[in-house]
Amino acid sequence: MISRLIDKITDKKAPIVVGLDPNLKFVPEKLKRAATEEKGESLDAAAEAVLAFNKAIVDATYDLIPAVKPQIAMYEQFGIPGLAAYKETVDYCHEKGLIVIGDVKRGDIGSTSESYAIAHLGEIQVGEKKLKPFDEDFATVNPYLGSDGVKPFVDVCNRCDRGIFVLVKTSNPSSGEFQDRLMDGRPLYEHVADKVREWGEDSMDGAYSNVGAVVGATYPEQGEIARKLMPHTYILVPGYGA
Amino acid sequence: MISRLIDKITDKKAPIVVGLDPNLKFVPEKLKRAATEEKGESLDAAAEAVLAFNKAIVDATYDLIPAVKPQIAMYEQFGIPGLAAYKETVDYCHEKGLIVIGDVKRGDIGSTSESYAIAHLGEIQVGEKKLKPFDEDFATVNPYLGSDGVKPFVDVCNRCDRGIFVLVKTSNPSSGEFQDRLMDGRPLYEHVADKVREWGEDSMDGAYSNVGAVVGATYPEQGEIARKLMPHTYILVPGYGA
Repeated sequence: MISRLIDKITDKKAPIVVGLDPNLKFVPEKLKRAATEEKGESLDAAAEAVLAFNKAIVDATYDLIPAVKPQIAMYEQFGIPGLAAYKETVDYCHEKGLIVIGDVKRGDIGSTSESYAIAHLGEIQVGEKKLKPFDEDFATVNPYLGSDGVKPFVDVCNRCDRGIFVLVKTSNPSSGEFQDRLMDGRPLYEHVADKVREWGEDSMDGAYSNVGAVVGATYPEQGEIARKLMPHTYILVPGYGA
Repeated sequence: MISRLIDKITDKKAPIVVGLDPNLKFVPEKLKRAATEEKGESLDAAAEAVLAFNKAIVDATYDLIPAVKPQIAMYEQFGIPGLAAYKETVDYCHEKGLIVIGDVKRGDIGSTSESYAIAHLGEIQVGEKKLKPFDEDFATVNPYLGSDGVKPFVDVCNRCDRGIFVLVKTSNPSSGEFQDRLMDGRPLYEHVADKVREWGEDSMDGAYSNVGAVVGATYPEQGEIARKLMPHTYILVPGYGA
């Protein structure tokens, strides 16, 4: 899957993703009014306005960009209708030929992580059928629980040709509280980077692994170190751009 | 909110929670067949069977227990219908007078964490209305991103009288990979425990804080240390029981 993303980036000459992180404050009044007139002041109306806004953004940009990154929290805040709008956004972006990176930051242990991986990247067996619940191409993953929290995602990636980006060094001001603390003379995020390289070794897809990393653009020095520690790891860099 | 949980535990003389983590393998054939006959081999059918099974479990136990802990990953794997079954499970448990701990392990940065907190514990403003998207009583939270990832949850807890349990030491075999590594002579999970105590200081509700911790029963020694480091922190202990 990472080779598909890289091909798209090369095609479009644009190593960027467009975030689809709907906040009602930024959705045009016209769209909100139309949705509210139809559905009242409800989660359904909010979700409808968000979806209409997303489609307008995608229509205006899809020929220029390789990928989008919807942030699921911004949909989850509108409950079930919001998550349905998330799923419709994923499908709409696929129709337009875009790669979809689900910014879901999931992570749990064993079979629970496997369920998250199936939800976002894999297939679930129901009777004789295999169904794709959310069907993103990539998902972001939290590493705090260690290998048995991350490997179920890697297994699903290997089985279904999908990819993940594991949080290594996040872009927020407090990211250093734990991530920069020294263990055996090296910060935690470097130990996580070592693991990301290891987790991705059997998931190579061309020059890079389907197991990527998240390293915030707000910390360029750590970005350089991460690059050296993970030479075959594709890096998603939030905190850059508008 | 933590005082309500403690009152319920005292009332029922049962310091336990019942997990509601549906796996189709464990759902009785009869329920699956009924759902499939009505809705085909679909996510809708899977979700319907899961909800019916949950209701049977709740009906059989609600008078004996204080709380339930649905694991959202096991619903998310059935897509939107699965998450709708999660929400219906939350509502059904509330009707039966149970406290609901949403095992969602969410965590992100700033406004994104706030959206997760609103989704699960708070209210979202749509026009003049304030709506409750999922409406659990507690949620589990991942601390890897540091204070600005966790504090938005604490703010929503303070505003809406809700609670969280922050992952400190998880019950899985690999939890030690990062959580047990020494920083300044103490393992990471102890540093997280210090922060949990600090995050919870302004959220006291009786003898305990609404900011609790998760410490796996599989590591009893670390549990004792965690207890000492967080004297006013209620501890959720997975990995004990059936």
